[in-house]
Amino acid sequence: MAKPGDRILVAVSGGKDSLGLWQLLRDLGYEVDGLYVGLGIGDYSDESARYARDFANARDWKLIEIDLATEYGFDVDSGARAAKRAPCSACGLSKRHIFNDAAIRHGYDVLATGHNLDDEAAVLFGNVLRWETEFLGRQHPVLPAAPGFVRKVKPLIRLSERELAAYCVLTGIDYIVEECPMAGGNRHLGYKNMLNEIEERSPGTKAAFVLGFLERAQERFTGEVELARDDLRPCTICSAPTPGDVCAFCRMRARAVGEPIGVRISS
Amino acid sequence: MAKPGDRILVAVSGGKDSLGLWQLLRDLGYEVDGLYVGLGIGDYSDESARYARDFANARDWKLIEIDLATEYGFDVDSGARAAKRAPCSACGLSKRHIFNDAAIRHGYDVLATGHNLDDEAAVLFGNVLRWETEFLGRQHPVLPAAPGFVRKVKPLIRLSERELAAYCVLTGIDYIVEECPMAGGNRHLGYKNMLNEIEERSPGTKAAFVLGFLERAQERFTGEVELARDDLRPCTICSAPTPGDVCAFCRMRARAVGEPIGVRISS
Repeated sequence: MAKPGDRILVAVSGGKDSLGLWQLLRDLGYEVDGLYVGLGIGDYSDESARYARDFANARDWKLIEIDLATEYGFDVDSGARAAKRAPCSACGLSKRHIFNDAAIRHGYDVLATGHNLDDEAAVLFGNVLRWETEFLGRQHPVLPAAPGFVRKVKPLIRLSERELAAYCVLTGIDYIVEECPMAGGNRHLGYKNMLNEIEERSPGTKAAFVLGFLERAQERFTGEVELARDDLRPCTICSAPTPGDVCAFCRMRARAVGEPIGVRISS
Repeated sequence: MAKPGDRILVAVSGGKDSLGLWQLLRDLGYEVDGLYVGLGIGDYSDESARYARDFANARDWKLIEIDLATEYGFDVDSGARAAKRAPCSACGLSKRHIFNDAAIRHGYDVLATGHNLDDEAAVLFGNVLRWETEFLGRQHPVLPAAPGFVRKVKPLIRLSERELAAYCVLTGIDYIVEECPMAGGNRHLGYKNMLNEIEERSPGTKAAFVLGFLERAQERFTGEVELARDDLRPCTICSAPTPGDVCAFCRMRARAVGEPIGVRISS
């Protein structure tokens, strides 16, 4: 995932997983800064930013902040409406884009995210229900760097939500406990609840599901990922890799701010 | 699945799926007889046998009956205890063995079972949760004949439980409505209920799950099946293909009747 000397950027939300990860990686001796993306989700964003800032300030660690509205002229809500996406989809698209872009721009070797076992299991469940073969091929704790992409790692996928909450409580990390108000009732949470029911009856199922996938199935799906990668070229607006002319993030941004798609912006 | 002139044996339980399948295949002009296996599950077995017999008699179609206790000296309950298996596992093992054995012994070309979309989805769900790669490679509506194995087909996997119930009601097929009393609370039913919840929120999920698997994933798992097949040799007791000396069915039978494992029986 990372070797000594690698510059790591950890994407932090103010929640237990990402703040816990930042702490863990620093304790392990890595050079790690934080990245907080303000998504404009009302009080929730204000509060989560406060947790991330307080955490960084108390340790005198560097936190890069990028505000979606200030930097790009829209927020998750207006982006979702403009692109006719669910809010969680507009949010995911924005975060993926900004995380990768910020890591490359600021010269980091690795982007780390705090996805835990529960997250991975729910995402895997959704990908398997629809047999999203390309997503399955990409669902791995280490995605190597590629042209236009920084290396991406998810060091926490063996740890459950509860374990990470316990780690934060035991080490005195203060984190935002509330869930995002936009996520209520989304599919991902529905899958999490189902997997929790199964886990209750058959403890160990979640770990067997995710780790069994990585051990025995994931690489059967990597062919599609390589094929898809061969089709990528730089977005004509932001130069991020995309299968079309303009990447999905720039298309959403243009629609949200009422610009014709394809106009180059200075950045 | 079958060509005109093939002799088909359909495994019937007295329920809607298998009786519906027998009717459908006959209506399509195939030469189809029925096979009923008495599993010794108290009143439930008595009643389900009655439905199967009445159905066959009313149409003057041939029904082969095999009684587990009479033929092999044990029932599902005693087999499960002896083999330290869950009852559903002992039942499945017995049925798989007897279906295949009867089809071969009586010279049928094809064994057909009434698995519907809901069954397939629940089995697939269990196989995916544990990434049972060999079972995934074998989960297909057509398993070609192989040494010691008759061709096995599942013609109904695109139809839901409700559709098959509707078919039986509309065509006047009288079937046993009760579920097996041993199945209450088993994993398979738990998975069915979960998939029903998801289907309610996102109609079409079950079909996308099963058919997407068959279209885009199943053949990625067939390698294991071929490797496993290479390791099979005839059971020293019954000559069914097995990776060991004595097949799992004969081992369960020997334990249940208190015979040392490995003693050849006349059959």
